[in-house]
Amino acid sequence: MVAAGSKCRVCRGPAIIDLPRHNAKFCADHFLELCRRQVTKAIEQFDMLTAEDRILVAVSGGKDSLAVWDLLTDLGYAADGLYVGLGIGDYSDTSAAYATAFAEQRGLTLITVDLRSEFGYDIPTAARATRRVPCSACGTSKRHIFDRAALDGGYTVLVTGHNLDDEAAVLFGNTLRWDVEYLARQHPTLPARAGLPKKVKPLCRLTEREMAAWCVVRGIDYLVEECPMAHGNRHLAYKSALNAIESESPGTKAAFYLNFIERMSPALGTARVDDVVLGECQRCGAPTPGEICAFCRIVERSVAHEPVPVEVLLGKKGRR
Amino acid sequence: MVAAGSKCRVCRGPAIIDLPRHNAKFCADHFLELCRRQVTKAIEQFDMLTAEDRILVAVSGGKDSLAVWDLLTDLGYAADGLYVGLGIGDYSDTSAAYATAFAEQRGLTLITVDLRSEFGYDIPTAARATRRVPCSACGTSKRHIFDRAALDGGYTVLVTGHNLDDEAAVLFGNTLRWDVEYLARQHPTLPARAGLPKKVKPLCRLTEREMAAWCVVRGIDYLVEECPMAHGNRHLAYKSALNAIESESPGTKAAFYLNFIERMSPALGTARVDDVVLGECQRCGAPTPGEICAFCRIVERSVAHEPVPVEVLLGKKGRR
Repeated sequence: MVAAGSKCRVCRGPAIIDLPRHNAKFCADHFLELCRRQVTKAIEQFDMLTAEDRILVAVSGGKDSLAVWDLLTDLGYAADGLYVGLGIGDYSDTSAAYATAFAEQRGLTLITVDLRSEFGYDIPTAARATRRVPCSACGTSKRHIFDRAALDGGYTVLVTGHNLDDEAAVLFGNTLRWDVEYLARQHPTLPARAGLPKKVKPLCRLTEREMAAWCVVRGIDYLVEECPMAHGNRHLAYKSALNAIESESPGTKAAFYLNFIERMSPALGTARVDDVVLGECQRCGAPTPGEICAFCRIVERSVAHEPVPVEVLLGKKGRR
Repeated sequence: MVAAGSKCRVCRGPAIIDLPRHNAKFCADHFLELCRRQVTKAIEQFDMLTAEDRILVAVSGGKDSLAVWDLLTDLGYAADGLYVGLGIGDYSDTSAAYATAFAEQRGLTLITVDLRSEFGYDIPTAARATRRVPCSACGTSKRHIFDRAALDGGYTVLVTGHNLDDEAAVLFGNTLRWDVEYLARQHPTLPARAGLPKKVKPLCRLTEREMAAWCVVRGIDYLVEECPMAHGNRHLAYKSALNAIESESPGTKAAFYLNFIERMSPALGTARVDDVVLGECQRCGAPTPGEICAFCRIVERSVAHEPVPVEVLLGKKGRR
């Protein structure tokens, strides 16, 4: 990750990583320090957390969710984890193992919710039953379960591991369409609303590559593979376009996201959807603009469908 | 530009061009028709021109400026051209020849202003004297001369050949920085202000590739080379990032620009710089926020500098 003989900007010791956007290289200790500082800055700048908060971290077993849980613990916050078993074949089995091992090694509490055993479906089956892209059913399912678990468990804030690359790619997609409503909603801190917990993204000032390095330096084993069902996802194209520009002009990606949040987001405040009045789902009571929430509609259609193994779905997709 | 045997969407005759963003191929005649329709739509949608306008087209000798002059003439507008001799070696000599030949063949009036003979400098010398990137001195010089010529000549509107790719790339750059003031100013029609003519961009709904095809089909010879001094320009990186996304999802580029103009630009209206009070330059009388306008400052520094041939400047740049 760095040329031999490179020195840390802070202590002149051997550098392990080159961060062009900071125009500097860092040794392991000072790199960790930089990550802690960026997370602390995000937490303060965007009023994410206080010492009194009861924190729930959405954990997937990937680098970002394990890194944010580790970082918060390291910074002195008490945080429990929540893992959702999505039933995506080996991918889910392996990710569950990483999440469980991480929690056990550090004596942290990991709550687990399994879609199939608790709700009678899994993501491959939901994708087939709803005839939508898998990421759609998956996102709706996870959001619902995270929200519900946070409120039921008495947590005051839900943390997700979205990093700067994730947020910049989403922002880029919304910007390419100038979807003003989505743009107005994009913020690293979303306040609690009726039926929805406060949600925060403490990694919004740190990149994907930095989070991978955090895990390596801290000895955290994580699931490296991307979800097999996310293949061809448009976000990957947005990330790669931003990366091409970033490599020409380091710092562009961070400026794109953070300048949006600082300069543009306040101007869009009036368009925020907080104004939309949400009713309660007639089945589960979750907030929804309609009568039945999106989650209950997925459950209804998926439970009635015979189980679809992920291999079958991907095989079919591959033949298209 | 199109697979053998492809048919025109309109007449089923042999197609000469494939336009993925329209999900269709077109024969020569119906492609020209599409271009005329897009220009007509831009003119109407953005209140660009009326039959009573006295129109001046900024002509460089490249495909876009010759195409817009040709399109306007073809649509029945009377328009004169203005060519500015920038003194960029062979590049300027060749571009002048293309502009002159086009005007002569069609019996159109081309006004010519030469920087060196009328103002005592050229762009390579200005770049060296001001120690800024050449595009900066060039843009300021051309804007000043176009504005002044339009007002002095009694023209009511100044037309430039900026196409969709140009506008999308500028928008992308402003968006990456969330430069709200620049974003607020980006519009295909800028109304006249004290000391500044109305300015319009009738090609804002048509791409670079479409304008090259227009010239080929219409038999217009134009200067194909990019300006040698623009090399490494950041716009080229923005264009290439947008092109990468466009090739994955045809139509993204047009949606990015046109949705901005339709949805976002109105929301930024209050930030428009029309509110900035401009005084008059103490030397030339042009509108300026300071005492001496940017053009007169370039002239002052450049005239005092010994002439720098473009080859010397580029050779030096190459060695960096």
